[in-house]
Amino acid sequence: MNAIEKINNRLEKGYHICVGLDSDINKIPVHLRSEDDAILKFNKGIIESTCDLAAAFKINFAFYEKEGASGMKLLARTLELIPNDILVIGDAKRGDIGNTSQMYAQSLFEHFGLDASTLSPYMGHDSLSPFIDYAKNIHFILALTSNPGSHDFEKLELTSGKKVYQEVISKVSTWNKSKNLGIVFGATNLDELKDNIQNFEDLFILLPGVGAQGGDLEGIVRTFKEHSNNNYIINVSRALIYADSSEKFAQVSRTVLENYNRTINDV
Amino acid sequence: MNAIEKINNRLEKGYHICVGLDSDINKIPVHLRSEDDAILKFNKGIIESTCDLAAAFKINFAFYEKEGASGMKLLARTLELIPNDILVIGDAKRGDIGNTSQMYAQSLFEHFGLDASTLSPYMGHDSLSPFIDYAKNIHFILALTSNPGSHDFEKLELTSGKKVYQEVISKVSTWNKSKNLGIVFGATNLDELKDNIQNFEDLFILLPGVGAQGGDLEGIVRTFKEHSNNNYIINVSRALIYADSSEKFAQVSRTVLENYNRTINDV
Repeated sequence: MNAIEKINNRLEKGYHICVGLDSDINKIPVHLRSEDDAILKFNKGIIESTCDLAAAFKINFAFYEKEGASGMKLLARTLELIPNDILVIGDAKRGDIGNTSQMYAQSLFEHFGLDASTLSPYMGHDSLSPFIDYAKNIHFILALTSNPGSHDFEKLELTSGKKVYQEVISKVSTWNKSKNLGIVFGATNLDELKDNIQNFEDLFILLPGVGAQGGDLEGIVRTFKEHSNNNYIINVSRALIYADSSEKFAQVSRTVLENYNRTINDV
Repeated sequence: MNAIEKINNRLEKGYHICVGLDSDINKIPVHLRSEDDAILKFNKGIIESTCDLAAAFKINFAFYEKEGASGMKLLARTLELIPNDILVIGDAKRGDIGNTSQMYAQSLFEHFGLDASTLSPYMGHDSLSPFIDYAKNIHFILALTSNPGSHDFEKLELTSGKKVYQEVISKVSTWNKSKNLGIVFGATNLDELKDNIQNFEDLFILLPGVGAQGGDLEGIVRTFKEHSNNNYIINVSRALIYADSSEKFAQVSRTVLENYNRTINDV
C-alpha cells in the first residue's frame, strides 16, 4: 500500500485523528522514565493501543533530533513499531534549495522510509519539488499555522487581495499534479477554515490546533462535512499521548482516541 | 569566545568567506571515496587548509541527515575537527511552534554545540524566539534566497508596499534586541542588494549565491563597502570545496579561498 492508499483507506472508515508522537522524557509516565529505552516503551504503548483506530501517526523530528545520533536511532526504532498499513508523517518542516531539499527528501523517504512529510513553503517551488517528485508519498505544505506568529507573515495581505497563506494554498493546488499534496491548516479559528475550505480542492488537509491548543473539534468536522470534504486529518499530540500518567497510559490514550472518533462520527 | 566575538574577530581581519561543508560522497575526490570515513577525511582536509583564512564554516544538515544516525555521528565528529575560534553555522533552516523550536534549538546549541543557526521565518516570531533567546548565538533568518522559487512567495508584494522578504528584514530588525540576529540574503541579483542594504541596520548578513550560483563577488563587496557595512558573510560551498579532485584538493581549496580574500580586499 502506498501513502495515498493508506490514508484513503483510513479516511473512508471515518478515522480522522492523527496521533502525534511528541514523546518527551519529561512528560511520559514517571514509572517509565528511569527505564532503559523509556521513550521507545512509551511509543510502543501508544502505537499498539491506537494504531487500529487512528488515521495516521506523526513523528515530530525535533523530539528525536535533540539527542543527535542516538535520537535518530530511536526514531528509526520507533518507526519499526508502526504497522505497515497506517500513514506515518515525518514532521520536520524542511525546505531548502533544490540540491539540499533532495537530500532531506532522501533522508525522510529512503533512509527512514516515511510515508509523508511536512514542508515549509517560504523558498518556493524548487525547494519543494524534490519532495513533490516522490509522487507516491504525501507532502503537507505549511499554509496557515495555529501559533500566534501566524500573524507575522502568513496572514499579511498581498496586493492581489489574498493573504500570504492563501497564495500558498493556491500555488500548492496548481502543483498538485500527482494528487499527493496537502497543506497544514491551523484549526484554532473556525472562521478561517470556513473562509478557505472552498479553495482546498483535492488537497489533503492536516489540522493542528485541536487538543492542547484548544481548537473546536466538532466545528471543524461539521465544516468539512458540510462541504462534502473527507480529506481532513486532525492532529492531536499532547492531549492524547499524555492523557494519563499511570501504568494504564496506553489504555487511556485509546479511550481518548475512541472518544474523538465518536465525536467525529456523531457530528 | 562567544559566537558574536568569533565572527567580529574574523570580519575585522577582512575575512568574509564562509566555507560551506556541503560534503557529498559522490563529489569528493575519487581517491577518498572508497576509504573508511571518506567524508570525515575530506572535511578534515578542507577545514585544516581553510580555517585560518575563512570567516566561518557552514554545516548543511541535509548532507548528514540523509544517513540518519550515522550521519549525525559524522556531523558531530566533523565539528570536533573545527578550531574553537571560528564561527560554525548549523544550516538546518528550522522553524516550528514554540515547544518544538525549543527542541530544535536544544539540538543545535546544546547537543551539537554550534555557534549559529539558519531559520525559516514563515511561522513568525514565536517559532523563532526559542532560538533568539540563545542570546550569545547568532541566528540567520531567511529573507531573500538565491533560488528561482524566491519569486513564489518571498517576492510577492504586500499592501504595505513592501515585499514579503522586506517585511521579514524589517521585523527581524525589531527582534534584534541582543544584536545576535542576521538574515540570509541571496546575492544573485546585485540590484536587490543595493535596494535593500540601507535597511540591514545591525543585522549580520549571510549571502549565498556566489560561486556555483554565479553571484557577482566584487559587486557585492563594493556595495557593502560603499555603505560602510562590514557585517557581511559570503557563503561559498561547491566552488571552493570541490575546486580540485586530486590528492591536492585541500591545498587547492586554500588557494581558491586566498583568491576570494584577495578579491575582497582589492575592491
